Amino acid sequence: MANVRSEVRLQSSVADLRRLLARHRLLDGLAARQEGPKRGLLEDLQHRQNAAELQRYVRAMHAADVAYALEVLPLDERRNVWEQVTDEQAAQVFVEVDAVVRESLVDLTAHDTLVRMLTSLDPEDLAYVSDAIPADVLARASAAFASADRTVFEDSRLYQDDSVGFFMTREWVAVPETHTVEHAIRDLRVRGELPPQTDRLFVVDARHALVGSVPLQALLVQAPEATILEAMVRDTPTFGPLDAAADAVKAFERYDLVSAPVVDERGKIVGRLTVDAAMDVMRGQADLQALRTAGLREDEDLFAAPLASARNRWPWLGINLVTAFIASRVIGQFESTIGSLAPLAALMPIVASIGGNTGNQTMAIVIRALAGDRVQHAEAARLMRKELAVSLLNGTVWGAIVGLFAFVFYASAGLGLVMSSAVVLNLVVAAVTGVAVPLLLHGAGRDPAQGSSVLLTFVTDAMGFFLFLGLASVFLV
Amino acid sequence: MANVRSEVRLQSSVADLRRLLARHRLLDGLAARQEGPKRGLLEDLQHRQNAAELQRYVRAMHAADVAYALEVLPLDERRNVWEQVTDEQAAQVFVEVDAVVRESLVDLTAHDTLVRMLTSLDPEDLAYVSDAIPADVLARASAAFASADRTVFEDSRLYQDDSVGFFMTREWVAVPETHTVEHAIRDLRVRGELPPQTDRLFVVDARHALVGSVPLQALLVQAPEATILEAMVRDTPTFGPLDAAADAVKAFERYDLVSAPVVDERGKIVGRLTVDAAMDVMRGQADLQALRTAGLREDEDLFAAPLASARNRWPWLGINLVTAFIASRVIGQFESTIGSLAPLAALMPIVASIGGNTGNQTMAIVIRALAGDRVQHAEAARLMRKELAVSLLNGTVWGAIVGLFAFVFYASAGLGLVMSSAVVLNLVVAAVTGVAVPLLLHGAGRDPAQGSSVLLTFVTDAMGFFLFLGLASVFLV
Repeated sequence: MANVRSEVRLQSSVADLRRLLARHRLLDGLAARQEGPKRGLLEDLQHRQNAAELQRYVRAMHAADVAYALEVLPLDERRNVWEQVTDEQAAQVFVEVDAVVRESLVDLTAHDTLVRMLTSLDPEDLAYVSDAIPADVLARASAAFASADRTVFEDSRLYQDDSVGFFMTREWVAVPETHTVEHAIRDLRVRGELPPQTDRLFVVDARHALVGSVPLQALLVQAPEATILEAMVRDTPTFGPLDAAADAVKAFERYDLVSAPVVDERGKIVGRLTVDAAMDVMRGQADLQALRTAGLREDEDLFAAPLASARNRWPWLGINLVTAFIASRVIGQFESTIGSLAPLAALMPIVASIGGNTGNQTMAIVIRALAGDRVQHAEAARLMRKELAVSLLNGTVWGAIVGLFAFVFYASAGLGLVMSSAVVLNLVVAAVTGVAVPLLLHGAGRDPAQGSSVLLTFVTDAMGFFLFLGLASVFLV
Repeated sequence: MANVRSEVRLQSSVADLRRLLARHRLLDGLAARQEGPKRGLLEDLQHRQNAAELQRYVRAMHAADVAYALEVLPLDERRNVWEQVTDEQAAQVFVEVDAVVRESLVDLTAHDTLVRMLTSLDPEDLAYVSDAIPADVLARASAAFASADRTVFEDSRLYQDDSVGFFMTREWVAVPETHTVEHAIRDLRVRGELPPQTDRLFVVDARHALVGSVPLQALLVQAPEATILEAMVRDTPTFGPLDAAADAVKAFERYDLVSAPVVDERGKIVGRLTVDAAMDVMRGQADLQALRTAGLREDEDLFAAPLASARNRWPWLGINLVTAFIASRVIGQFESTIGSLAPLAALMPIVASIGGNTGNQTMAIVIRALAGDRVQHAEAARLMRKELAVSLLNGTVWGAIVGLFAFVFYASAGLGLVMSSAVVLNLVVAAVTGVAVPLLLHGAGRDPAQGSSVLLTFVTDAMGFFLFLGLASVFLV
């Protein structure tokens, strides 16, 4: 093996898959045209060979790669690949795949088949994907659980999807504090395999409460006769199941964790958070932030039906329309001013546009600071002062340029001065809004990115028009 | 210990620090006012006690926590904390801290002190932070290296900051394929500690080429007499030092890796990529994307000097200004039309605004798809068709609403129809632009997020004005 680059390997596996699918589809087309007795024996044979090749190929793929391929492929090809997987693969793919694509897979699959696939999942994985599964399928799939597993399943479903409990696994290895290293290793040998991403054993006392952890490394390098307490790391970071998953991710980043125990309020271990879950949380947050800033409710399937996509975009488009109407009414108040000085109509969008852009820059910085917990009460005022200083500086520089432009184009010093003043004032408005909108959303417990761009643009548009046309009506007309 | 939540602990440690700093500053203020003989002995004593307490507190902190505190604190308090750390802490903090804050720390520190701090870093860490360090300091700090370390240092500096080589560590543990498990464990015991985030040993053949890896778990649970080849995982994902770090991160996510070997073209191990580095890369990308979409060149220190902040924002503001001028000239061509029908000035921003918003929604989805390698050549056309369908659907619905509004407010059916048509057409423009801009930037090897919002808004503004005013001048005036 050696030099197999995994990303490269993956890309080529999707490319291979595409080729197989293309051949498959081509022959399907041929077959359809040659339906009935005219259908050649040769085509039929080749078609079956291709289908077998496709199936063999898909079934040899890593579940994560199948999931990725399904996300990449358009709906009809997605269905074609999905039909090739084994039930066991299907269950793993179902856990790995994007939430939006998961929903499309549910739509593609008969309920009986879904039940058969899902029964091979462990209870916490079933809980993890349960949002996408129709109630009757979920009931039938979970009916197969033994009572202990059923309890785990019911428990798992109680956690919010942004909590540590939602992302934790219930597989961990505990070791009593009274053991020696040798004893612990002997137990591991008896046990055989360890759960994925196990970098440490959790040390418990006689009451089964967590007292610390022993890295696998320590077990390997310590003398066999050393006690677990000697090999133990005492200040193991721990989380509560109700803690915010986002906060836990920050701890993983800061302390370079691979796994950490999740404990209840009495110090008993209830689960384990692993770094792969932490990465999933981080990726999910990053994706959602970009989408929400742009005013989308949620992620959408790249190949979703247009109506479903359109609906995802309506709430913020509706809000945008209301704000645009209001901004329009602001201009409407100055119709007579514009009527007597037509250049105002051409120049006013510049004031609005430069305000919107600087405001969005400020807002991006504030949202980033909030995401990193960098803005506390004390910093809000300081941050506002800094952004005001930046906006005055930018306003002076760009206001002068814009004013000069107006003066040159329309040969009116008055118009130039009004334009400059409006730009300076609107940049101040943009700075205040850019700092205030995310802080207020965050303070109200909302995602500071959610639609913040739409709100900000409203303020800088409406105020830009008002300031510019207002100053013009007072000083020029 | 038990139930110590690390994130909670961290927040309180920053809060404690703030309290200590506040007391410190208060007493500094008192001392300044009571300068000279009037300064009370008691205040003096208390001041010194507080300073000692602050120092003790800071020196007991984890380097990652100190780094976080420095990022959060405004400049003067940042200096105060930075002055308390030991040289050894300082070196680690320097590696952990944000690039922008790192630069501010360099500004706060005398060059001699910097040299003293940095000599405790290993060569690859020094290379990692070298961008922030003045050339003379770097030369003096690296002069202390022995020749092997110097080679590592020089090598490390050759890699681009988005490559695997830049982020890899040169610490790994290799084991010959001919060993038994028992032999490998004995070697580990002799060695003592393993490098951080070591979840597997890399198995090498007689020519020191990589043949696979052995998870630590496998060493623990396998029988001692088993051979390394029996315990080995053969299809270990590997990376090349020149591979894109972003691609490596995707492999870490998909295959739930903790560490992976980095090999040269002959299959020899040259480094090791760990999951903590992968998380850093992911976080850095997510941050940068949000900032770049808003038109910022790079991250900025939350408490940077206004001039430095302003400069970071100028390139895209300049571009925005040029585009706003062009849009303004589009309107300028229709000044006589507006002069004879003043409501057009009030209504035209609605057409532009709704275009900008839908375009930004489309673009957010395309940028996300590009980041996930989900859009290949074949999908571009399909994606475009879908977005066009969504835009026609949205255009019809929202165009009708907007047209109705214009009709009701201005009692003109013609105005309403022109408005509706302009909205439909501008949403089509927005869809095409929203798909095309990121695809073209990506195709040209640029970050598809970089300033894409500014470019898109330009197109939807200019075309919105042109379509609406053009239709009005043909049909209404």
